[in-house]
Amino acid sequence: MTASGPLAGITVIDLSRILAGPYCTFLMAELGARVIKVEPPGKGDDAREYGPFVNGRSTYFASVNRGKESIALDLKSAGDQCIFEALLARADVIVENFRPGTMEKLGYGWERLHPRYPRLIYAATSGFGHTGPFSHYPAYDMVVQGLGGIMSITGHPGQPPVRIGMSIGDIGAGLYTTVAVNAALVHREKTGEATKVDVAMFDCQLALLENAIMRYTVTGTVPGPLGARHPSITPFEAFATADGAMIIAAGNDALYLKLCDALGRPDLAAAPGYKTNDLRSRNQATLKAEIESELKKQPTSAWIPLIERAGIPCGPINTVAQALAHPQVEARNMLVTTEDPVAGTLRLAGNPLKLSAFPDPPTRPPAPALDADRARLLKELGIEE
Amino acid sequence: MTASGPLAGITVIDLSRILAGPYCTFLMAELGARVIKVEPPGKGDDAREYGPFVNGRSTYFASVNRGKESIALDLKSAGDQCIFEALLARADVIVENFRPGTMEKLGYGWERLHPRYPRLIYAATSGFGHTGPFSHYPAYDMVVQGLGGIMSITGHPGQPPVRIGMSIGDIGAGLYTTVAVNAALVHREKTGEATKVDVAMFDCQLALLENAIMRYTVTGTVPGPLGARHPSITPFEAFATADGAMIIAAGNDALYLKLCDALGRPDLAAAPGYKTNDLRSRNQATLKAEIESELKKQPTSAWIPLIERAGIPCGPINTVAQALAHPQVEARNMLVTTEDPVAGTLRLAGNPLKLSAFPDPPTRPPAPALDADRARLLKELGIEE
Repeated sequence: MTASGPLAGITVIDLSRILAGPYCTFLMAELGARVIKVEPPGKGDDAREYGPFVNGRSTYFASVNRGKESIALDLKSAGDQCIFEALLARADVIVENFRPGTMEKLGYGWERLHPRYPRLIYAATSGFGHTGPFSHYPAYDMVVQGLGGIMSITGHPGQPPVRIGMSIGDIGAGLYTTVAVNAALVHREKTGEATKVDVAMFDCQLALLENAIMRYTVTGTVPGPLGARHPSITPFEAFATADGAMIIAAGNDALYLKLCDALGRPDLAAAPGYKTNDLRSRNQATLKAEIESELKKQPTSAWIPLIERAGIPCGPINTVAQALAHPQVEARNMLVTTEDPVAGTLRLAGNPLKLSAFPDPPTRPPAPALDADRARLLKELGIEE
Repeated sequence: MTASGPLAGITVIDLSRILAGPYCTFLMAELGARVIKVEPPGKGDDAREYGPFVNGRSTYFASVNRGKESIALDLKSAGDQCIFEALLARADVIVENFRPGTMEKLGYGWERLHPRYPRLIYAATSGFGHTGPFSHYPAYDMVVQGLGGIMSITGHPGQPPVRIGMSIGDIGAGLYTTVAVNAALVHREKTGEATKVDVAMFDCQLALLENAIMRYTVTGTVPGPLGARHPSITPFEAFATADGAMIIAAGNDALYLKLCDALGRPDLAAAPGYKTNDLRSRNQATLKAEIESELKKQPTSAWIPLIERAGIPCGPINTVAQALAHPQVEARNMLVTTEDPVAGTLRLAGNPLKLSAFPDPPTRPPAPALDADRARLLKELGIEE
C-alpha cells in the first residue's frame, strides 16, 4: 500500500469507531497517509455491523474505511499492548473518538503517551470535548444536531423539526479534526513538537453556525427556520415547478427584471409592490405564488435552460441519483470504484481534495477485513507471536 | 499581530471574497497563520456590504475576517501589481475563490505563478472546480445545495424543499480547502514542493453525502428525506413535547425497554408489535404517536433529566440562544469576544480546534477596515508609493 499524496510517509494509528474519527482518518488516507486501524478483537469497529450489507460485508464500513489497514488488538492484554506500543513508536498521529477518560483508563492518555512518544500527535474527537462539565456525556450525531442549534434554523416555520439529511455532527467533527491534525503536522515538521488535538462534536456544530451566532449576538433576534429561502434577498429560494422544485437566486433588481422577462410576466416587473428587494422581501409570499403560477406550467428540466440563458443563477433540486449523473461528477472523478474482495465492485464518493502534484485515480483500495494486516504488521515490527 | 498556533510563521495572501475562501483563511488565522486580505480598491470584499450592520460596519464581514490584515490593490494597475508580487514573494499560500479563469486573465494563474514562486501553494475554491465542462459556471450556496443532493435528503417527505439552515455549500468547501492546504503545507515542509489545490463546492457536497451515495450505489434505492428520524433504528428521532420537541435515541431493545419504563408505559414494552427494532421500525408512526401522547404531558425541560437518568441518549432541540447557553460553551470558550473599533464589542463563534500546545484566549483581534494595513505592509516590503 504505497500511497501518493501530500501526507505520504505519515503513519496514523486509528483507534476510532463508526464515523467522526474514521472520517478524519479517511481524509488522511486519501491524502496519502498510512492509516492502521487498531480494532477490538472479535467484532472490530462497530460500523462493521451497519448496513447495507453485500455478501455479509458492511458497505457503510467499506465506504469510510477504504485504503486503511487493520489489526485487532486487546489493549488490556500485555502481549497486544506490546504490539500497540511498537506501532505507536513508529507512528506520527494517533486518532481516537472514545468517551473522554477511556484512553487514560487504558494507560494511553495524552499525559502518559506524550513523554514516551514526544513526536506523536494525539487527536481526540468526542461529543463534548476533553474539558468542561459535560465532557463525559455521550453524544450521537442526532443528539448533537439538536443540541447545537442547526435543527432550529433548518426546516419550515411551524413544521416538525428536521434533521440534516447527512451526519453533520460526525462528519463536521471529522473535518475540523483533520484541519487541526494537519496543522499540528505542519507545526511538528517545523519544530519537532507534538500537540494534543481535542475536538468536540458540539463545538463543531457551533463553529458551523458562525453566521447564525453572529446574527443572534448582534441583533438579539433568535434565528428561526426559513424553509428554502434566503433571509433577506427575494426572490432567492426554492420554487415549485410542474414536476418538482427548482432554485432561483435573483440577487438584485436587474436579475429580478430578467426573471420576470424569462417567465413572460412583464406585469411583475412593473408592479410597485415588487420594485425593490426590500419590497419584494416584504411581499415574498405573494411574489412566490405569482412566480410558481408560471413555473408550474412546465417541468424543471424545461425551465432550467430558459432561466439559465437569461443569466439568472438557478438549478434543480437533485436527488442523489441526479447529482451523481451531473457531467462534473465524471469529469472530476467524484465517484470512485473499489474492488472489495467480498462485496465486489463498490462505487463510492470520490475525494474533493484535488492537488496538482498528485494523481487522483478512478479506483481506491478496499477497506480491510478485521485483523487483515496482522501478520504483515508484526513482521514489519519484528514481533513474533 | 503576532499569532500563536501551529501555523505561526505561515503567510497567506487572501484574494477570496464572501464566504468559502474567507472561511478557509479564517481557520488558518485561528491556527496562527498571518492572513493578508488583498481586496479591490473602493468596495473591497463584497461581504463588507452584508448585514447586519453596527455603526455601518458589516458584522457578517467582521465574524469571518477577524484577525486578518487588509490591503486594497488594483491587480490591473502596474504599481499595485508590483506590491502584490512583493507580497507573493514572501507568502506561503495564496487563496482565491474567483470563477475559474479570472486569475489567468490577471496573469496570476497557477501556471504563471508556480515557476516564479516555486514554494507558493495555490488554493482555489470555486463552484465546480478548475476542470470539467461546467467549470466556468457560477455557483451560489443555495444553488449548490440543490444540485449536490443534500436538500433531497433533508426535510419531511411530501413537504416543500428545505435548505440547510447554514451555508453548508460555502462552509463545507472552506473546510475541505483548509484540510487540503494544510496537507499541502506538510508536503512542502518535507519536500520543498508546492502544489495547486483545486476544491469545488459541488464536489464537497458529494463528499459530505458519502454515506447516502454509498447507500444509493449499493442498493439502487434513491435516498429521500426522513424528517428527523433515523433510517433504520426506532425510536430514534425528534418527538413533540408539551412545549416543543426533543430527540430520543433508543438504539437497541434494552434502551427501548428503559424508555417505556421512563414514560410509565409498560404496555408499550410488552406490545408484540414493538418487540424488536425491525418491528418498531415497521410500526414507527404508531409508536411515535404513543410516545408523543406521553411526552406532550410535560415540557422538554422536565423530560430531559428523566430520560437522561434512565440512561437513554436524548436532548433538546436548542435554538441558537439555547445552544449558546449550554455550560460547555463557556467551559470550551466557544463564544469569543472581538473589540471592533467601529462596531464595538462583538461576540462571535469560537474556534473548535483546541490544541494543547497553544492558547485559546477569550478575545480575538477584529476584522480589518479596507486597506487598513497598507502603510505598514509597504514599509515591511520596502516599497515607497
